[in-house]
Amino acid sequence: MELSAIFHHPDKRFCYALAPGQFLLRIQAKANDLRLVVLHTMDKYLPLSIADTRQQQVMEKVTTDGIHDYFEARISLDMVCLRYFFALTDRHGKTVYYGNYRFSPEEIRNIDDMFDCPQPLREEERFCIPDWAANKVVYQIFPTRFASSRPVPDRIWYQAPIGPSTDLKGDLRGILSRLPYLRDLGVDVLYLTPIFQANSCHKYDTVDYFQVDSRLGTEEDLRQLVQQAHAMGMRVILDAVFNHTSRDFFAFRDILEKGETSPYCSWYYIRSFPIRAERGEKPTYKTFSYYGGMPKLNLQNPQVQEYVFQVVRYWMRACQIDGWRLDVGDEISHSFWKAFRKVVKAENPQALIAGEVWHYAGDFLEGDEWDTMMNYDFQGAVLGFVHGGPQAATQFVQRMGFLRGNAHTHVYPVLWNLIDSHDTQRAMRSCGDNPDRFRLAAAMQLLSTGMPMIYYGDEYGLTGGNDPDCRRGMPWKPEKQNGDIFRWYQTLIRLRKAHPVITQGRITAVYADDQKGILAITREAEEEKMTLVFYNGSKPAACGIPQGRDLITGALFRGTLSPFQVLILSPADDST
Amino acid sequence: MELSAIFHHPDKRFCYALAPGQFLLRIQAKANDLRLVVLHTMDKYLPLSIADTRQQQVMEKVTTDGIHDYFEARISLDMVCLRYFFALTDRHGKTVYYGNYRFSPEEIRNIDDMFDCPQPLREEERFCIPDWAANKVVYQIFPTRFASSRPVPDRIWYQAPIGPSTDLKGDLRGILSRLPYLRDLGVDVLYLTPIFQANSCHKYDTVDYFQVDSRLGTEEDLRQLVQQAHAMGMRVILDAVFNHTSRDFFAFRDILEKGETSPYCSWYYIRSFPIRAERGEKPTYKTFSYYGGMPKLNLQNPQVQEYVFQVVRYWMRACQIDGWRLDVGDEISHSFWKAFRKVVKAENPQALIAGEVWHYAGDFLEGDEWDTMMNYDFQGAVLGFVHGGPQAATQFVQRMGFLRGNAHTHVYPVLWNLIDSHDTQRAMRSCGDNPDRFRLAAAMQLLSTGMPMIYYGDEYGLTGGNDPDCRRGMPWKPEKQNGDIFRWYQTLIRLRKAHPVITQGRITAVYADDQKGILAITREAEEEKMTLVFYNGSKPAACGIPQGRDLITGALFRGTLSPFQVLILSPADDST
Repeated sequence: MELSAIFHHPDKRFCYALAPGQFLLRIQAKANDLRLVVLHTMDKYLPLSIADTRQQQVMEKVTTDGIHDYFEARISLDMVCLRYFFALTDRHGKTVYYGNYRFSPEEIRNIDDMFDCPQPLREEERFCIPDWAANKVVYQIFPTRFASSRPVPDRIWYQAPIGPSTDLKGDLRGILSRLPYLRDLGVDVLYLTPIFQANSCHKYDTVDYFQVDSRLGTEEDLRQLVQQAHAMGMRVILDAVFNHTSRDFFAFRDILEKGETSPYCSWYYIRSFPIRAERGEKPTYKTFSYYGGMPKLNLQNPQVQEYVFQVVRYWMRACQIDGWRLDVGDEISHSFWKAFRKVVKAENPQALIAGEVWHYAGDFLEGDEWDTMMNYDFQGAVLGFVHGGPQAATQFVQRMGFLRGNAHTHVYPVLWNLIDSHDTQRAMRSCGDNPDRFRLAAAMQLLSTGMPMIYYGDEYGLTGGNDPDCRRGMPWKPEKQNGDIFRWYQTLIRLRKAHPVITQGRITAVYADDQKGILAITREAEEEKMTLVFYNGSKPAACGIPQGRDLITGALFRGTLSPFQVLILSPADDST
Repeated sequence: MELSAIFHHPDKRFCYALAPGQFLLRIQAKANDLRLVVLHTMDKYLPLSIADTRQQQVMEKVTTDGIHDYFEARISLDMVCLRYFFALTDRHGKTVYYGNYRFSPEEIRNIDDMFDCPQPLREEERFCIPDWAANKVVYQIFPTRFASSRPVPDRIWYQAPIGPSTDLKGDLRGILSRLPYLRDLGVDVLYLTPIFQANSCHKYDTVDYFQVDSRLGTEEDLRQLVQQAHAMGMRVILDAVFNHTSRDFFAFRDILEKGETSPYCSWYYIRSFPIRAERGEKPTYKTFSYYGGMPKLNLQNPQVQEYVFQVVRYWMRACQIDGWRLDVGDEISHSFWKAFRKVVKAENPQALIAGEVWHYAGDFLEGDEWDTMMNYDFQGAVLGFVHGGPQAATQFVQRMGFLRGNAHTHVYPVLWNLIDSHDTQRAMRSCGDNPDRFRLAAAMQLLSTGMPMIYYGDEYGLTGGNDPDCRRGMPWKPEKQNGDIFRWYQTLIRLRKAHPVITQGRITAVYADDQKGILAITREAEEEKMTLVFYNGSKPAACGIPQGRDLITGALFRGTLSPFQVLILSPADDST
């Protein structure tokens, strides 16, 4: 047994309350090393001499990432404090006991050598994620480039190459007018990149957090947009750009004017005066990256924190928005996000908080900061698969296994699974502008557990390189659209919603053929069983996957995959 | 290479700021698996096309716990965000690269495949532990049993067996009168178990948090005690018993009187009315353990929280106390302790916060809750060694290695290393009432890194079984004292202070002979080198430890250990 691979922590990571009286415990071991894991529990404060509270439960191997297997048990509790340890049995039948970070060849009897889980505080600290969010479909809109309420000439809207600051005159009323379109596509949540008064077209350089950017519309427009979205069953999430402002934000402007005597010096991190931000030099103040135009706010300053919280409350009250996406989330302190969460949840416990971060960031996802994050690892896993390669199928499974094994069990279904965004090249471009390969990528996104985040235009096959080319005008003109791709998105979203087993079913079999590039995942729920098949080859291929009815086409699958084929096989329908 | 043993987390555990611009990174691997670990770093926001910020640094293997080795690097930073990865080379010369939780056979070039460390927020979140605390000597006093300012007849003070609620009439002025004694012993910090108005003699069932218990004295007595302690260079820490109250605390009393109509129902966790706490049944309200006499406070209630914080502020202001020991610390929520820390540190950033917990509790020690904890693992490690056994010496080293490898580097020297307390039997009893074995245990405590917590009376060899027998009257009468043991304590504390190398020196060699029961640890600082030798055998034994001058006795050590011998060998003195 590989003891050095065993990992368990008796706290928010691997031991937590799911609901009052309901707990989840998880332990990690080396992949394929353990045959059996049994959780032994007892009441800390009832010694055996008074009552025998000992219980045992076999833990289920729920996932693997190729390096580690993850075992889980769900238990019911009604006590002051739980003590527990694990009995780990390897393939050779050898059993080792693990408690309080130590291994023992013998069953643990001293409760001080067990792990500890106080029940009330774990319940109070439990991770409460909005009930509505799991597996919902997010749609990311870049407001100046999505839709305009005014006529915009094609030579403007479809110009190429597009400049970084070109204003295509997209606006909030334009988005409003497209809500029926988004509902028909199957969207549940709109996420708008910034809309507050700013200098640039991307608006990540805020000038006034209390004003809707005048080029995008008015506060009333936003209010109506949210109201109508709500009326259609959709939610609206705004971008929280609090890491930095523009230099034209009132506080920084005051510093520019008054220098060291400005009362706002402590709102930023000024290294030295005079303020300078010359090309080729680091600015004399902290910034986002080294951009002089984006001075970093000092969010440790209580005044700044309170200012930001007023912004948060203002928009939640004025327009009933449903949450925030946190720009540069990982470069802002945990203490700030803890306070931020309290403010947001006090306004609306059902508001969603999604942090931007480009790597797995479990520390922000322990229950008292964010609800979820932008899942760039998902992008890497999907693009890795669709391009094939020595271990393409296996690696996709393993990368999902890592997230499933490490993230809180309620976080995994709300991860914002993306294949592109305004900060990357278009997924179509990543797929070599091959529509079939792109459809495969989109299908992996739409048929996985989590919240797929569709970047506007992907559903029409919009392509483009890195910023600014990934931010082209939305192709509303039919001749600019790939209708097959649109129907693909619409169909898969419809099936995803009609068959919860696709995203919520227990994974009961995984077939990863790296040679052929075939990945098949069987999921089961109470009454349903589906096998999702993804094939990354460009030539037809025979495979041993049993026959079944493909829900996408309605056709019977007979064992030969066509290039880049995706199947949702229902075995119940097998023989008909 | 055992990939499944590799552990690194780019946050408070294994990647943090020690000071502005100074960072520590740590990584864990399987014991004895890696030959070389190199940290590769670069600036996230300066691509190679602009500047080559890449650096490499060999990481030092700082400790092992037998299962894992721990490697550390300290680096200087001046950037927005660091990206980094590890090059891991095993004994066979094979190198694997590790970044963003994934392994690669090739050096990592894509910064999104590296780990991420934003500099400013890590600096803001850095763990600030009071400057004065590292390696200081704590002395735990049980006030009703330590010293009385009034004459108490021997038949009372030395009664045996002692009852659980016997009041020996120890008091604050008694402690005050013994301050010169404590200073002479070498004590730096007094920790008093509870002193507020309470029902029992242990006073863990508080009746009034704003009153010094009238049997112990007055607020003025406490003020004078702290003042005089300060004048002698000692600090005073009180017991924060906020998990629960007595039933006579005003709020619970109100509930007892008014039932469901009491405005204080939300101050506790009442399951049902009428309030009941019958023998053999669980009380109808949450309690400490299942003791009806200790109802658990609802510290999630903001009113209760504010009440408790008033208590905290009151005593810090009124009497200038130097910190708090947190009773039942691990059964109170992280969110409470985070708020508690802010209150305490706002009053006095140099106040120390020490949590009671009986296992390693890293989650409370990430910088925003406690400063340190009662180190019961240390007790287990010491008692394990002094009793011998198949791997006694090795296990002591490994258990210390686990703490050294997992705890924040600033926490390790402030851990409250104890060999007994008011909640365990006396260490003398644990040593089979063998004074020589006990002296060995005490020496391990006094010669280790950390804050040794001496339980009152141990320095005279006081013995006793579990509570209440471990809480006997302090043996002030010379005929009740073991003077050898007192001199042992005094000498070792003096040497510990005179030679910082003993606690702070880099460990450059460890010799653990489990057969003979010999443990020798060599530590080096800039100008000093010492070898600490501990021998758990009851017969003389020859050993290969080089000759040297023993600082304890001044004698030359010539290679034969006497039973239970302890040596502090100074090799500089070798040949004289």
